[in-house]
Amino acid sequence: MKTIKNDVQNIVRDMLQGFYFEHKERVYYDSKHHIIYRKDLGDIGQNVVLLSGGGSGHEPAHFGYVGDGMLSIAVSGPIFIPPTPEQILAAIRKADKNKSVLMVVKNFKADVDNFLTAESIALKEGRSVDHILVNDDVSIENDATFNKRRRGVAGTVFVHKIVGAAATEGFSLQKLKEIGSSVVSNLHTLGVALTPANNPTQTETSFTLEDHEVYFGVGIHGEKGYRKETFDSSEKLAIELMNKLKSIYRWKKGDKFAVLINGLGATPLMEQYIFSNDIRRLTQLESIDVRFFKVGSHLTSMDMKGISLSLLKIEDPNWEKWLKADVRVSSW
Amino acid sequence: MKTIKNDVQNIVRDMLQGFYFEHKERVYYDSKHHIIYRKDLGDIGQNVVLLSGGGSGHEPAHFGYVGDGMLSIAVSGPIFIPPTPEQILAAIRKADKNKSVLMVVKNFKADVDNFLTAESIALKEGRSVDHILVNDDVSIENDATFNKRRRGVAGTVFVHKIVGAAATEGFSLQKLKEIGSSVVSNLHTLGVALTPANNPTQTETSFTLEDHEVYFGVGIHGEKGYRKETFDSSEKLAIELMNKLKSIYRWKKGDKFAVLINGLGATPLMEQYIFSNDIRRLTQLESIDVRFFKVGSHLTSMDMKGISLSLLKIEDPNWEKWLKADVRVSSW
Repeated sequence: MKTIKNDVQNIVRDMLQGFYFEHKERVYYDSKHHIIYRKDLGDIGQNVVLLSGGGSGHEPAHFGYVGDGMLSIAVSGPIFIPPTPEQILAAIRKADKNKSVLMVVKNFKADVDNFLTAESIALKEGRSVDHILVNDDVSIENDATFNKRRRGVAGTVFVHKIVGAAATEGFSLQKLKEIGSSVVSNLHTLGVALTPANNPTQTETSFTLEDHEVYFGVGIHGEKGYRKETFDSSEKLAIELMNKLKSIYRWKKGDKFAVLINGLGATPLMEQYIFSNDIRRLTQLESIDVRFFKVGSHLTSMDMKGISLSLLKIEDPNWEKWLKADVRVSSW
Repeated sequence: MKTIKNDVQNIVRDMLQGFYFEHKERVYYDSKHHIIYRKDLGDIGQNVVLLSGGGSGHEPAHFGYVGDGMLSIAVSGPIFIPPTPEQILAAIRKADKNKSVLMVVKNFKADVDNFLTAESIALKEGRSVDHILVNDDVSIENDATFNKRRRGVAGTVFVHKIVGAAATEGFSLQKLKEIGSSVVSNLHTLGVALTPANNPTQTETSFTLEDHEVYFGVGIHGEKGYRKETFDSSEKLAIELMNKLKSIYRWKKGDKFAVLINGLGATPLMEQYIFSNDIRRLTQLESIDVRFFKVGSHLTSMDMKGISLSLLKIEDPNWEKWLKADVRVSSW
């Protein structure tokens, strides 16, 4: 697999410099710590600034969501490796000391360790910092085979949007953490790969697929899924993912949902919309009330061709309002 | 290559229904003619409505650009085949008869034939209709091998944006056609493929590439390029494309440009930004003044992994203003 890159050691720097050049009118780039942050961070009225980040290879997550109404600060690690505590601490320190910082962290062990280490140091510095753990991935069926931890995947982008919009209304750190945690407990994602991810910093992919195969339940770093099967149609993929999510939600007619259809990096938009149409039909057959529907490559896994389905059961009408609120970022 | 689809005959309908479900609060979908158009088309103040379209397989072009400040109407043909004159005529008729319609047409023979046939019928109906031909692709070197016609490719999206923003200021049909034509004559694009396009309605790709090869100058329907070579680095791709464009523009220090870096469908955003950073460095070495820089998968070629570079020499400061103007579409 060819990757459009130069020296593999500089992939993250090269990428962020490219992004910064496109958006330099409204963001700053800390090239030492690989942080993209709002230029107007010192002037924003809200009490809490939202920070997120993680390994690279998931673009546009997370720098594509930096801007008014979503994230204020994004910090990037190497490909599929979280930023260090030092990087994260530097990111927290971008905020004025009289502002609180709320971190949105995807539930992978290395991410959690590094973000919480940085948080504890920042707290000792007298800063007000807290975090939301996102664990929307429901793909892991078999505790004997896989780590039981539920991972944070594409649904994370809904957390950024909802909490980011709520933050502009001036809520406190504690209230925003409550909103985010409540969203997370109603948020579930399941994905399917048509090809493996290609990590240019490694020579082998973490799994292989035959030309005719798809793999349900894969993770965003090339983690293995729960079942391979022969690819048949978009509709069959949609049915598998919807049925698994139905078994978790046990929804009733008229239950309100937000839906995120997420391309995994090498999935043409045409195919994302064809799959979206199958999900539309299934939601109509189930008589669930889709209040918000979003399609695009939002949290990806390098060159992986594949797609994920995230559902959020809307328990608070404000969530819908915040999902639909205007925002000024590059990739929502 | 696996394509996320159902019955191949229904690919375009399935895709447009998926898009419509996502955006039904602000657009209508004519399922007979495969037209997406603004719901508020009857109420808009501007004198001229902008219409574009072409074959499918180039998403988000063109329906992703329908909305306030860009296109009012988009019409879709089958994969890599333009809409029929009947479809285009139906699209023109979506506009009120007292409004003028300006069509943005990519310069392929079949597209031009069909759009101009529809235009001539609409003129006979007493409608005010005109068109802009976009021919930004400069890849064809050898008249003996390739048709001499310069094709319309990714730069088309800049025409949509500039003329779409200008239209909101109330300009006449003739003036908008002049603006568009002037933009086109300063707009050039060159692309490179890392993999062929995959057309699910055909069994074979139009060209093949070895694992190590790239192909310069390919078209957006899998048309062959001008040279294959072994892939080396992002920087080498950037140098080849910039040098070719430099030979056309013969720019001077300080000349003002807008830049579009376009992913061809299966190109992860990370790689688009790495390439963007190489283009940034080359523009700085050349001392040209980049006033606007846009990165993303804007006009694609199905599953093709590859990238194109479009440059627009800014001859009128309004072009920069219109490129930067706010817009309400899904994919700008």
